[in-house]
Amino acid sequence: MDLEMGEDRFFGSSLTILRRFLFRILAVGPIPNHITFIMDGNRRYAKKQNLEQGAGHKAGFPALMSMLKYCYELGVKFITVYAFSIDNFKRRPEEVQYVMDLMQEKIEGLLKEESIVNQYGVRVYFVGNLKLLNEPVRVAAEKAMLATANNTSTLLLICVAYTSSDEIVHSIQNSCQEKWDEMQASKVNGACNGEICKQEKERCAIKLVDLEKHMYMGVAPDPDILIRSSGEMRLSNFLLWQSANCLLYSPSALWPEIGLRHLVWAVLNFQRNHSYLEKKKKHSYLEKKKKQL
Amino acid sequence: MDLEMGEDRFFGSSLTILRRFLFRILAVGPIPNHITFIMDGNRRYAKKQNLEQGAGHKAGFPALMSMLKYCYELGVKFITVYAFSIDNFKRRPEEVQYVMDLMQEKIEGLLKEESIVNQYGVRVYFVGNLKLLNEPVRVAAEKAMLATANNTSTLLLICVAYTSSDEIVHSIQNSCQEKWDEMQASKVNGACNGEICKQEKERCAIKLVDLEKHMYMGVAPDPDILIRSSGEMRLSNFLLWQSANCLLYSPSALWPEIGLRHLVWAVLNFQRNHSYLEKKKKHSYLEKKKKQL
Repeated sequence: MDLEMGEDRFFGSSLTILRRFLFRILAVGPIPNHITFIMDGNRRYAKKQNLEQGAGHKAGFPALMSMLKYCYELGVKFITVYAFSIDNFKRRPEEVQYVMDLMQEKIEGLLKEESIVNQYGVRVYFVGNLKLLNEPVRVAAEKAMLATANNTSTLLLICVAYTSSDEIVHSIQNSCQEKWDEMQASKVNGACNGEICKQEKERCAIKLVDLEKHMYMGVAPDPDILIRSSGEMRLSNFLLWQSANCLLYSPSALWPEIGLRHLVWAVLNFQRNHSYLEKKKKHSYLEKKKKQL
Repeated sequence: MDLEMGEDRFFGSSLTILRRFLFRILAVGPIPNHITFIMDGNRRYAKKQNLEQGAGHKAGFPALMSMLKYCYELGVKFITVYAFSIDNFKRRPEEVQYVMDLMQEKIEGLLKEESIVNQYGVRVYFVGNLKLLNEPVRVAAEKAMLATANNTSTLLLICVAYTSSDEIVHSIQNSCQEKWDEMQASKVNGACNGEICKQEKERCAIKLVDLEKHMYMGVAPDPDILIRSSGEMRLSNFLLWQSANCLLYSPSALWPEIGLRHLVWAVLNFQRNHSYLEKKKKHSYLEKKKKQL
């Protein structure tokens, strides 16, 4: 038994050495700044393995932790995962409750001393319409954000109660609110005329820079790679605004089955296209507008 | 020679019969309402075939006409193609000029009696910031829209001088303009207070329904399938808002090489996922909001 454990440990650390060696080679090329994941296929995994319902989500958590570890070792600065969509609230109530309970447990687990978040100094940030979460999950999320606020190595963005359309509408409404407040402050008559009115209107128009400022995802640069597990190629209302020039990759592995090889493949593909993508970004409408405004 | 031509005609019409038979079988299942294409790989095709620069774009046109014909035969009501992005204006001036000249020639060709557009009664609609086009292309585009305005069989949407971010910003700005005009009309004092002010603010807030109304693509339902040729899986700032629940398919064929088999494969994939996608759409944030507003 001891011998076996020794062997396990030997193989384990050999694999770690091999992985780090592989990452050293990869790091000769450009490393993506921001990788995002749609963690799809947990329920299908449970079905495939004849597990009870909900066990798929549980099995997905170690996969997330591995990805976080690999990304950290590789030097990726921003990692975003799609954990729970606003549309997911429409699933059966007991399933929603199960996922919420699991989420609360896992968020609280993130803060324990031995967790990867603490070991690596990862900052955790929740993205989405957090008011839609139930109280215990929201409290746990807020605690986690506060506790890791000073960590600087990597930013882990967890999208919960999120959809991209909600993010865009939310951003427009906040921009409107800001402009409205500005109008109120300057006490300009709404029914004005002539040149002053034109200037005022121009000043109060919502611009691209306002939108970007009020996006939930405004804390991170646009993603370089989006990986969606389980072979489905849809964005499912995830980071639509931010994915304009992002590489999409959809391995057939279900989320709990996702592994190092998928990440390495995605990074190699990114490196192959890097100079082209950089050129694209420089030419892109968003970049140009950002510089103008 | 005559015998050969006869043989050609025989094989041609046999293929047509076979294709129509195949489409009859496909039509037993659900047929997508809206298919969109990113016509990528024209330049790579020219390089691969050792053709002169620009010849790739020329070779891409018959592929577009074939896709239009197949979609029409299959009963697809809306077809959208990404012909020219705002970012493409950053290419070398002589290339931009070449593409503009080609576009003008092809748009004018669409109106000829023998063209597929006329044969099938297709309505042509240009989508994008058309002010950015040069005069002759814009005039040709406007002529084509006017000439086909009463056609009802299929709507062909051609995105030129388009990016999705530009579309969203344009839609927000038009919504703002509308609200501003409403405020002017009601002559409400911008510096108001109390309950009336709150109501006025609520009424003037930009809502999802305003955004949707002012989108260039507001004339068509959201796409069911997005096909991007040449194996690249990026959206390149195309229909980001509209693709939230859309199937993405990226065959490795370059655009001039795209054929019937790719379309059939995409439709089969759509049919396989249809009930799931319909459920998704019913649950989706956008659909719910549209019903609420």
